[in-house]
Amino acid sequence: MARIGIIGSAGRMGNALQAAVAAAGHEFAGGIDRPENGGGDPLALAQTSDVLVDFSAPGALEFNLDAAIHAGVPIVIGTTGLEERHHWLIDSAAVSIPVLQTGNTSLGVTLLAHLVQEAAQRLGEDWDIEIVETHHRMKVDAPSGTALLLGEAAARGRGVHLADEAVRGRDGITGARKAGTIGFAALRGGSVAGDHSVHFLADNERLTFSHLAENRGIFARGAIRAAEWVIGKAPGRYTMPEVLGL
Amino acid sequence: MARIGIIGSAGRMGNALQAAVAAAGHEFAGGIDRPENGGGDPLALAQTSDVLVDFSAPGALEFNLDAAIHAGVPIVIGTTGLEERHHWLIDSAAVSIPVLQTGNTSLGVTLLAHLVQEAAQRLGEDWDIEIVETHHRMKVDAPSGTALLLGEAAARGRGVHLADEAVRGRDGITGARKAGTIGFAALRGGSVAGDHSVHFLADNERLTFSHLAENRGIFARGAIRAAEWVIGKAPGRYTMPEVLGL
Amino acid sequence: MARIGIIGSAGRMGNALQAAVAAAGHEFAGGIDRPENGGGDPLALAQTSDVLVDFSAPGALEFNLDAAIHAGVPIVIGTTGLEERHHWLIDSAAVSIPVLQTGNTSLGVTLLAHLVQEAAQRLGEDWDIEIVETHHRMKVDAPSGTALLLGEAAARGRGVHLADEAVRGRDGITGARKAGTIGFAALRGGSVAGDHSVHFLADNERLTFSHLAENRGIFARGAIRAAEWVIGKAPGRYTMPEVLGL
Amino acid sequence: MARIGIIGSAGRMGNALQAAVAAAGHEFAGGIDRPENGGGDPLALAQTSDVLVDFSAPGALEFNLDAAIHAGVPIVIGTTGLEERHHWLIDSAAVSIPVLQTGNTSLGVTLLAHLVQEAAQRLGEDWDIEIVETHHRMKVDAPSGTALLLGEAAARGRGVHLADEAVRGRDGITGARKAGTIGFAALRGGSVAGDHSVHFLADNERLTFSHLAENRGIFARGAIRAAEWVIGKAPGRYTMPEVLGL
Repeated sequence: MARIGIIGSAGRMGNALQAAVAAAGHEFAGGIDRPENGGGDPLALAQTSDVLVDFSAPGALEFNLDAAIHAGVPIVIGTTGLEERHHWLIDSAAVSIPVLQTGNTSLGVTLLAHLVQEAAQRLGEDWDIEIVETHHRMKVDAPSGTALLLGEAAARGRGVHLADEAVRGRDGITGARKAGTIGFAALRGGSVAGDHSVHFLADNERLTFSHLAENRGIFARGAIRAAEWVIGKAPGRYTMPEVLGL
Repeated sequence: MARIGIIGSAGRMGNALQAAVAAAGHEFAGGIDRPENGGGDPLALAQTSDVLVDFSAPGALEFNLDAAIHAGVPIVIGTTGLEERHHWLIDSAAVSIPVLQTGNTSLGVTLLAHLVQEAAQRLGEDWDIEIVETHHRMKVDAPSGTALLLGEAAARGRGVHLADEAVRGRDGITGARKAGTIGFAALRGGSVAGDHSVHFLADNERLTFSHLAENRGIFARGAIRAAEWVIGKAPGRYTMPEVLGL
Repeated sequence: MARIGIIGSAGRMGNALQAAVAAAGHEFAGGIDRPENGGGDPLALAQTSDVLVDFSAPGALEFNLDAAIHAGVPIVIGTTGLEERHHWLIDSAAVSIPVLQTGNTSLGVTLLAHLVQEAAQRLGEDWDIEIVETHHRMKVDAPSGTALLLGEAAARGRGVHLADEAVRGRDGITGARKAGTIGFAALRGGSVAGDHSVHFLADNERLTFSHLAENRGIFARGAIRAAEWVIGKAPGRYTMPEVLGL
Repeated sequence: MARIGIIGSAGRMGNALQAAVAAAGHEFAGGIDRPENGGGDPLALAQTSDVLVDFSAPGALEFNLDAAIHAGVPIVIGTTGLEERHHWLIDSAAVSIPVLQTGNTSLGVTLLAHLVQEAAQRLGEDWDIEIVETHHRMKVDAPSGTALLLGEAAARGRGVHLADEAVRGRDGITGARKAGTIGFAALRGGSVAGDHSVHFLADNERLTFSHLAENRGIFARGAIRAAEWVIGKAPGRYTMPEVLGL
C-alpha cells in the first residue's frame, strides 16, 4: 500500500484518480488543484506522499516537479499539451528523481501500440495499414491523439516517419492507394469514450487490432498502476511500456 | 427456368453473371460484348431471351433498350456511370417494356438501405449517424457509391437532403459534431470486395448495421434474381427494393 | 414536464432512473422501496405523480397496480421475473389504466428487434441466422434475455417457433449446419454492460445488426421515455415497440 | 525463382497452390496426386524440384518424405490429420533435409497467434480471454482448429494448459465466469472462409485481435512463402513462426 498524492484532484479525471487509488487498495495522501478549485501546496503534498500523480496543467508543471525533487518522491505526469520546454523540465528533474511521463495511461492502449509496432515490422508493405477511431460528439479534433500514437507505432515498426506516410480524411477522387501509406479515419457521435482499430489489409486476408474504452476510468487505473511501478526506481525518465515490461 | 441473355458477357462481371445464371438453374441464352471482346447483335440476343441483363457501358444503352423493345422482353440494367439522358431513355423504354435499373444489385445492400431508412426515421436526431466503408486498394474514389446510397437512405428517413448534411473526410480541428449531420469515412486496403457499416450513436448506446461482401458474385446473384422477378411484369420502371417486396 | 414517481428508487437502477428523470427535464415526484431501503406508500406516491415507473419486485406488483388504479395514473413496469399470475394482474389493471410492461426498456434494443424481424422475414432461409452476445464476468446465465428476445424476433419474422429452431452452445462434432436453425453464442468477460449482434450469413455476403450498451443508463432512459409516452393514453396494455411507433 | 513441386496438386487446394506458385513468380515443377487423380512419381518430381509442397494425405507421407530425402530437397508439409507416428517420420527425415510442418500456413494467423501469446503474457488474469470464430455452414466441428491454436497460444502466454482452462459451448446456468478460463464460441453460416477473434476483456476496457480470411487462397500463399524460406536451410524441423522471423 502506497500513499498517493493527486495534483489536479478536482474535476472528472481527479475524481476518477481518487476512485482508482481506493480501488487499488492504496491510501489517498491528499489532492491539490487550481486556486479556484481549492488550491493546495504541492510541496506539502509531496512530503506526505510516496508518489505524486499529476494530471493538472502545463503551467503548473515546474512547481510540481520542484516539489517532487525537494521531497525526493517519484512523479507520474499525465498532463497533456506539453511543449518542448516542459520536456526539458522533465529531463532535468529526472536527474534527481524517477519521472514517468506519458500521453496515454491506458494499459490496453500501451500494449496495443507495442503489438501494432511488431505486426507492422513483421508484415511488410504488402499489408496496407488503416487506423480508424470513434469518439463522442463533443470531441473537437481528428484524428485522436491515441490514433496518432498507434500510427507512430506502425511507422516505427516499418522504419518510416509517420509524417511522410499519413493519409488523413480520404475523400473524393483519390486515385489508387499508394503503397506504404498509413490511413486515418475518424467517426464522431454519441458518448463513445474511445474506440481504436488498426487494420492490416493484404490480398485475401486481414488482421485487426482493436481497443475499446468503456469510460475514462481506464486512464486513472493505468496512472495508479504506473505510480505503483515507479516507486523505488532509480532516478530517470520512464514511459508506460516499461510499466508493462515491454 | 428462364433464358437469360447477358450484355457485357466478357470480363469479370460477365463471367460472374454467367456463373450466377447457371447456379440459379437458368439457361444462358448467349452473351454479347464490345467488338474487341467478340461483339454480337443485341436484337438477335433479345429475340432468343426471356430477359436481358445489361452490365455493359452507357454508350451502348440506347441500342440495348431498342433491342429489348423490339423483341418485347424485359431488361435489367446494372450499368454504372449513367447520366440524365440515359435515365430519359430508360423512362421512355419503360412505356413499352418492364425495365429494372439499379446502381447496386446486392440483395443484402438493398435490404440494408431499407432498414437504415427506417432506423433513421424512428430514432431522431439525438442518434448521430456515421457511415464507414472499406474497399480494396485499387479503388480510386471515396466514399463508395454504396456508402452514398446508404447515406441517402438515412437522409430520407430523417426527411432531409444528404447534400445538406453530409460530412466527409473529417480531419483536423473540426469543432464539436453538428447535430443532424451524416458522417462518411473510407478505408482502403488489400482486396476487400466491400464492407459497409452504418452507425447510430446515442448517449450510452449504439446501433450498427453492417454488410460485408466476400466477393463480387453477390452483385451477379442479385442481378439474376432481379431478372427472374421482372419477367412477366407490366411495362414500367422498377427498382431493387421491389424485388425484395420492400 | 411530468411528475414521475419511482417504485424501486434505491439501488443502482433506482439511482439511474432518478438521474434519467432529471436529464429529461421532468420532476422527480418521489421514490419508494422495500422497508429495509426506506419503505414508502405507493398510493401516496401515485396521488402526487403523473405516472409511475416500477422496477421493484414481482411480490410488490399487486400493491403497486392497486395504487395506480386508485389514483388513476398510468404505470410503466420494468420489473423482471414476472410469472403468469403477474401478467393476469397486469391485464386486469389495464382495463382501468394504461399499463406498459416490458422486459427490456432500451430504445435501441426495441428497434433492433423490430428490424431483425423484418430482415428475417425478407431474407428467407438461405440466410443463416446467428446471435452472439457479450456480458460482464458476473453474469450467471447464457444466452442473455435480450439475445433470446432477438431470437424470438427472428423466428417471428420467419414464421417459426424459436424453441424448435434454437441451437445453443455449439461444440464438438456438430455436423453441417441445419437449414432454418437460429444459433446462439455467449461471451463473458470484463465489465461489458451488454453487446448483442444478429448475423445473417448467405453465400458470399453477410448482414450484421448490432447493439452496444455502454452502461445500464440506457434502460433508465428508455423507461422514462416510455413513461412520457404512456401519459394520457387510453386504458390498455402497451409495449415498448409502440413507444417508438413501430 | 524456384522450381516448386506440388504433392496433392488436384482439387481445390492443389489448384490454389498452383495459382500461388505462379503469382509469386516461381516455376511450377509439376504436380502429382492420388492414382484416381492422375497419380505421379514423387521421386521423379523431387528430382526436378528445388522444394516440395505436400498437401496430400497422411498415408502418402512416408513415400513423400523418402522421395525428398533421396533427392535431397526440402519439403513443406501442410497435410492435416497427422498422428504421432507421422510426426516420428518427420523428425526422422529432418535429420537429412529441412522439413517445415504446420497445421496452418496462413501468415496472418501465424502472426496473430504470436501476438496473442504475448498479450496473454503481459496482461495477466484480470483480463478475461474469449475466442470466437465463424465458418461456413458445411463445417462439421467446433471450435475450429485455428481457434484452438489461438487458445494454445493464449494458454502458453499465461503459463497454463489449455485443456485445464478451456470453457466451450457456454449455455444455461453457468454461474459467474471462473478467473483464468479461456472461452470458445463458434458461429456457423453462409460461405465464411474463416473469421477468428481473440478478446481480452478487463474492467472498462477491451482488446480484440482478429483475423479474417476472404478465401482459401491465403493458405496457398503462405505455403509458397514457407517453401521459398525453407530452401537452403540446414537439415532440421521448422515451423511457420520461423518463416516470419518470430
